[in-house]
Amino acid sequence: MEDKAQIQEAIKIQGEVVRKLKSEKASKEQIDEEVAKLLQLKAQIGGDDGKHQFVLKTAKGTRDYNPKQMAIRERVFNTIISCFKRHGAETIDTPVFELKETLTGKYGEDSKLIYDLKDQGGELLSLRYDLTVPFARYLAMNKITNIKRYHIAKVYRRDNPAMTRGRYREFYQCDFDIAGQYDGMIPDAECLKIVHEILSELDLGDFRIKVNDRRILDGMFAVCGVPDDKFRSICSTVDKLDKMPWEDVKKEMVNEKGLSEEAADRIGEYVSLQGGMDLAERLLQDHRMSQSKQACAGLSDIKLLFSYLQLFQVTDKVVFDLSLARGLDYYTGIIYEAVLTQAGAAPAPAEAQNGAPAEESVSVGSVAGGGRYDGLVGMFDPKGRKVPCVGVSIGIERIFSIMEHKAEVSAEKVRTTEVQVMVASAQKNLLEEKLRLITELWDAGIKAEVMYKKNPKLLSQLQHCEESGIPLVAILGEQELKDGVVKLRVVATREEVDISRADLIAEIRKRTSEA
Amino acid sequence: MEDKAQIQEAIKIQGEVVRKLKSEKASKEQIDEEVAKLLQLKAQIGGDDGKHQFVLKTAKGTRDYNPKQMAIRERVFNTIISCFKRHGAETIDTPVFELKETLTGKYGEDSKLIYDLKDQGGELLSLRYDLTVPFARYLAMNKITNIKRYHIAKVYRRDNPAMTRGRYREFYQCDFDIAGQYDGMIPDAECLKIVHEILSELDLGDFRIKVNDRRILDGMFAVCGVPDDKFRSICSTVDKLDKMPWEDVKKEMVNEKGLSEEAADRIGEYVSLQGGMDLAERLLQDHRMSQSKQACAGLSDIKLLFSYLQLFQVTDKVVFDLSLARGLDYYTGIIYEAVLTQAGAAPAPAEAQNGAPAEESVSVGSVAGGGRYDGLVGMFDPKGRKVPCVGVSIGIERIFSIMEHKAEVSAEKVRTTEVQVMVASAQKNLLEEKLRLITELWDAGIKAEVMYKKNPKLLSQLQHCEESGIPLVAILGEQELKDGVVKLRVVATREEVDISRADLIAEIRKRTSEA
Repeated sequence: MEDKAQIQEAIKIQGEVVRKLKSEKASKEQIDEEVAKLLQLKAQIGGDDGKHQFVLKTAKGTRDYNPKQMAIRERVFNTIISCFKRHGAETIDTPVFELKETLTGKYGEDSKLIYDLKDQGGELLSLRYDLTVPFARYLAMNKITNIKRYHIAKVYRRDNPAMTRGRYREFYQCDFDIAGQYDGMIPDAECLKIVHEILSELDLGDFRIKVNDRRILDGMFAVCGVPDDKFRSICSTVDKLDKMPWEDVKKEMVNEKGLSEEAADRIGEYVSLQGGMDLAERLLQDHRMSQSKQACAGLSDIKLLFSYLQLFQVTDKVVFDLSLARGLDYYTGIIYEAVLTQAGAAPAPAEAQNGAPAEESVSVGSVAGGGRYDGLVGMFDPKGRKVPCVGVSIGIERIFSIMEHKAEVSAEKVRTTEVQVMVASAQKNLLEEKLRLITELWDAGIKAEVMYKKNPKLLSQLQHCEESGIPLVAILGEQELKDGVVKLRVVATREEVDISRADLIAEIRKRTSEA
Repeated sequence: MEDKAQIQEAIKIQGEVVRKLKSEKASKEQIDEEVAKLLQLKAQIGGDDGKHQFVLKTAKGTRDYNPKQMAIRERVFNTIISCFKRHGAETIDTPVFELKETLTGKYGEDSKLIYDLKDQGGELLSLRYDLTVPFARYLAMNKITNIKRYHIAKVYRRDNPAMTRGRYREFYQCDFDIAGQYDGMIPDAECLKIVHEILSELDLGDFRIKVNDRRILDGMFAVCGVPDDKFRSICSTVDKLDKMPWEDVKKEMVNEKGLSEEAADRIGEYVSLQGGMDLAERLLQDHRMSQSKQACAGLSDIKLLFSYLQLFQVTDKVVFDLSLARGLDYYTGIIYEAVLTQAGAAPAPAEAQNGAPAEESVSVGSVAGGGRYDGLVGMFDPKGRKVPCVGVSIGIERIFSIMEHKAEVSAEKVRTTEVQVMVASAQKNLLEEKLRLITELWDAGIKAEVMYKKNPKLLSQLQHCEESGIPLVAILGEQELKDGVVKLRVVATREEVDISRADLIAEIRKRTSEA
């Protein structure tokens, strides 16, 4: 399609860009990026001189998962999915792209981060930006009014990695949501119970779950004298309280957002409050707060929520915190966010925020968040019928990072296969016998490997076991074949015992049943 | 960005297209498609009149998976992944998009089916078209020369659903590959063993695995008098033999491809041959075939392959079939394809080919295919270093269809959750007691549900169990609470027994241990 002369011209220009950056001693990152563009251009005309100049890289902001990372990812998924299943959740899946207009008007300013597909004729498509909007579209499209589902899948955001180091443009989200018209706060409380279970089981260190309610925030703004049209803007400033001291937040409210100093001070008093059911009770009596119907509705629900949380035995970690704001527009009731409180357990912030969505990663240690969104499904229904929803998103990329970091610093070896036994030989010309034996093992459901060599050395077979953590070796030799036995070697202890062929499978099962 | 007047003009034109189609009584499918375009256009300017006109659909050629489909999908995945793990495979993952040029020049004519992302600045990207090219890129990029890995993920092809009904544009691939320099035919034989295990375990009915070798095909073409530059083209005609009778294939060779009648007849003799190791031996003696060095190399390998397949005890299903061609350019040695032979077990062809890649779905009943590709990784290596590979792709979408179809026609109910017990109440005002009990169950790892209503009717609680296949109900009432017991009801038999609170968890575990 493109003219060759044009490309060659582009190569020349790009070459100069690179030279200029190098002479200016620009950052390695910046130079690498421009060099990649240059190589890409060169590759386009590279076909002619016989060898294609490939740029061997993944797309910017994406990464491959190697087997070790996959093993960790699988372990984390298993823990989380078990919890979702314990709570009776179903699962669904949606396509990686949606009609462009399905995503339109759902993400405010962040819409610019949506990946569009090229118009190659037909519908205009975009990659999904989260799992919540496709979920709402799914419910409306199928007229589903009741479901408890989880969905674990990748989402896409054209975030600028230069600005937000360590974030990915392709990353997992892991959502659990309960849709349906139910009695107040029962599903909401279950979401918090789930967060508590998952974070406890993953053993990430101590954590705290902050809880607030959109209606309490809005009521509070109203009674503090914030003009209606400034609610959202002031709310997003409050959202910065976990990264900035109150003084700076106040300055932003007064100097940038034009709020009166008195109003800011009143807000300041409220957002410093933390507690439990008692705090909700106190605020219901508060002379100012009690004037807001909205706030009172929220406070009553917080009380009810805490009564259920007590029954679920999770109040040890849950705090009613009036400074919790969360950015997403679509929340209508309770909101929550879980943070790790042991700084030491987490990697440095730079690498910590992998994939945490921009508007959701309000806290450095944030590992889960969510809330109630009763209006979103109605946006998709032709008649605007509402389906109340409450859900939670587990910050799984953040958790992967922590787990990978843990695996690196600990001596523990991450196994990437589950092989129980290696079928090996001590002498030459035993390939056929080994294949015969491994067939017996596979057919009995034993996880087994054999080297793809006719005559591998015993040492290299044993080395492979050490490297990949295979616990047992079934060694065949002339003598063993004659005696109808197999020499079973325990890799860790180097102990060897002759096991009769007939008992081998049972013996392997017995010895690896804990693994 | 787009001008409103322009859009309104487009709406007018599109409206006429729809009217015209309707007046012409065009197919429903065609009309629906044009109506969708019209609604999409209208939606673009819909914001003004207050209510957005949403088109509630997934992108063309894609689908959601509902919980029932997901349950089937999970079951199929589990069977396949267990098999891969039994054979010691690791797993990796790659991003859903690649640099456009990574895919360039790998798929021949089918490149036009690649989805490109819109150029929003930065790199040019495309959605992955299969998992093999990203795998080769991964190996070359990380200089990996040895790996046995599986990868299950979605791939994207802008196929025309009007032409190939029932195919998807987003579909799963499920690949197992062994990369590395090994002794001949051992990994190749293991791939066939894996196909045999998976198809047997999935219980899809009887099947056959056809085997051939690229070098035998090329050698055969040479000795039959096919000019070198016609190999690929004649090969793709041979590929049609499972859908067309020989007479038609011959006609295409002679009339369309310009092959001499004698050459075609010679090919005809060979491609009608089927057998095992004996056939390979016979052909090695064949006066014509034995003149091709290439063919002899392939035939010797087929002999060696069959000797390993005998040890693996899978020769009952494997046939050496000289008509098997397979379209992909990158195969260099052995090729194979598994087909279901019981027509009755499979849905009609129209819905059967879901997602089966165009060039790979040579047979209506094809459920797996693969082969050796020793050159692909070298295409990515700057120095052209080769990494020999052999692999197999399980036609998982096809298998999903068959399983879904089976589930529909059978009386068997597909459960979408794994809930073991429902915590229910016979009287009012017992929500708190139920939440206390379910907390005990969850904390003990029991999968349990409770209704999100304060006072649900016992009947509706029991109905929910029937509908979602929950086997047990733990019923609380005033009397049970007083006695320190729970009434455990077996949904299937309606049997009820009082179990003491202390024994409840053990009792539930015992009664659901087979599930």
